[in-house]
Amino acid sequence: MSNNTTVSTLVNGRASETFAIADRGLHYGDGVFETAAIQGGIVEFWVRHDARLKQGCNRLGIPLPEPVLLKSEIDTLCFGQTRGVLKVIITRGSGGRGYRPPSGAECQPTRIVQIHPWPDYPASWSDEGVRIRTCQTRLSQQPLLAGIKHLNRLEQVLARREWQDPDIAESIMLDTAERVICGTTSNVFFVRDGLLHTPELSRCGIAGIIRSVVLEIAAALGMSTQVGEYSLADLAEADEIFFTNSLIGVWPVRQWDEQQFSPGNVARRIAESLAAWKNRHQGSSD
Amino acid sequence: MSNNTTVSTLVNGRASETFAIADRGLHYGDGVFETAAIQGGIVEFWVRHDARLKQGCNRLGIPLPEPVLLKSEIDTLCFGQTRGVLKVIITRGSGGRGYRPPSGAECQPTRIVQIHPWPDYPASWSDEGVRIRTCQTRLSQQPLLAGIKHLNRLEQVLARREWQDPDIAESIMLDTAERVICGTTSNVFFVRDGLLHTPELSRCGIAGIIRSVVLEIAAALGMSTQVGEYSLADLAEADEIFFTNSLIGVWPVRQWDEQQFSPGNVARRIAESLAAWKNRHQGSSD
Repeated sequence: MSNNTTVSTLVNGRASETFAIADRGLHYGDGVFETAAIQGGIVEFWVRHDARLKQGCNRLGIPLPEPVLLKSEIDTLCFGQTRGVLKVIITRGSGGRGYRPPSGAECQPTRIVQIHPWPDYPASWSDEGVRIRTCQTRLSQQPLLAGIKHLNRLEQVLARREWQDPDIAESIMLDTAERVICGTTSNVFFVRDGLLHTPELSRCGIAGIIRSVVLEIAAALGMSTQVGEYSLADLAEADEIFFTNSLIGVWPVRQWDEQQFSPGNVARRIAESLAAWKNRHQGSSD
Repeated sequence: MSNNTTVSTLVNGRASETFAIADRGLHYGDGVFETAAIQGGIVEFWVRHDARLKQGCNRLGIPLPEPVLLKSEIDTLCFGQTRGVLKVIITRGSGGRGYRPPSGAECQPTRIVQIHPWPDYPASWSDEGVRIRTCQTRLSQQPLLAGIKHLNRLEQVLARREWQDPDIAESIMLDTAERVICGTTSNVFFVRDGLLHTPELSRCGIAGIIRSVVLEIAAALGMSTQVGEYSLADLAEADEIFFTNSLIGVWPVRQWDEQQFSPGNVARRIAESLAAWKNRHQGSSD
């Protein structure tokens, strides 16, 4: 964050660093969130983040946040931020003790809008590639929650606890059926025999915004893509592997455990197209 | 709650109705909780609740709450409460953006201790039995989180959203492999051919405090018990079905969808023994 060093937060439009302890976001993780990059005061790909937020709310039966209010709160916090991270959380709001959600007028969702500092990842991770590992923690299979970015994230916390080495940037996560799904905080792509692959996410994982953009970029570049089911063995035979999310963009893999990879042409072309796309769409948030 | 009608809350020992928005309990459901019955100022089975809380913290790698502090906060809130519900939440505390948990001195867990009013379940539900249904929502299988009472409870929220009929007290939940696991907020037992059965919980579900007490009571009464894997068909052939948790005690089933059951002798004997156990242990919290 360029203007100051403290986190700025609006809760239902009011500056606050606290929120109601009765909120179901705390008690049950009953809500969804988005994490987006801010560049030059603009939230990158906000239209897509907003669409996923709404999809998550609809899946959980949480009333949609009032769009004008939410956008105005985001604009207020992002104004003048040259570089930063936007986090938006929508919870079902307060609602007594017990799993049964409040309904109708009793349900007053909570909007939380936050600005965080831009993470200081080494520039070499984008340019020369990252070292990665494989997680022991497996993702459970829950089609009802797959794809959306909900607040039940203990599996990711357990996965991220597995390593402390700051030189390891990411770790591959499998589901309980040993299918490759994602990184702990990113989506994964790999190239084999000229085809760009990424795991399908109908049982677990989060459908990343940059993942969707990369699939569109690849199609526009004339690359053949496949969304499918893959094993670790499939990944190990890849010519290139790379990770994507809204903050890292594209991280090519240069080393996976002891196996070496050359950050390749596909990752580079995708990263260049992504940067060009962002420049082209600056100001429109998509 | 007998003394007043508002919820009373201590956050790290201080009266508060709000807590830090940076808390990982909100962002990731990164914590555990307990819900216990208060009777005559005493927390029923607190020793067991406390043990499960610690087991959950250990599983997630959250430092244990300072036991003397926690107990003194609970005692402060429970003093003079003739009847109420204690809720204790332990989160990993605040810790920036990102799944990676803070470690060492940076990790300062949050203790939340709350008193809620006693729920006004109809007395007939214990005496004459309850009507139940079967959930469409399936529980995912995640051995790393099974048994403990963590804050990732969206599956229970989705399950509890499935019905509004206030005459239906509970709903049976299956896992994604169609095994019977529990109720939305309780454990389930059934009797068939004189044997008392309850599902094993190594892949999902919460290992209930009353479930453990009921298994001990059954053994003490000379009943044969079996903890195993069961289908809906197994349950449908039962002579008796009953649900248990810390607030409801024992709820025998009188009707499951269109199938009638007679609240039976086993549920009655277990409920009587549970009441006697509580009276016998009053003052010792176990």
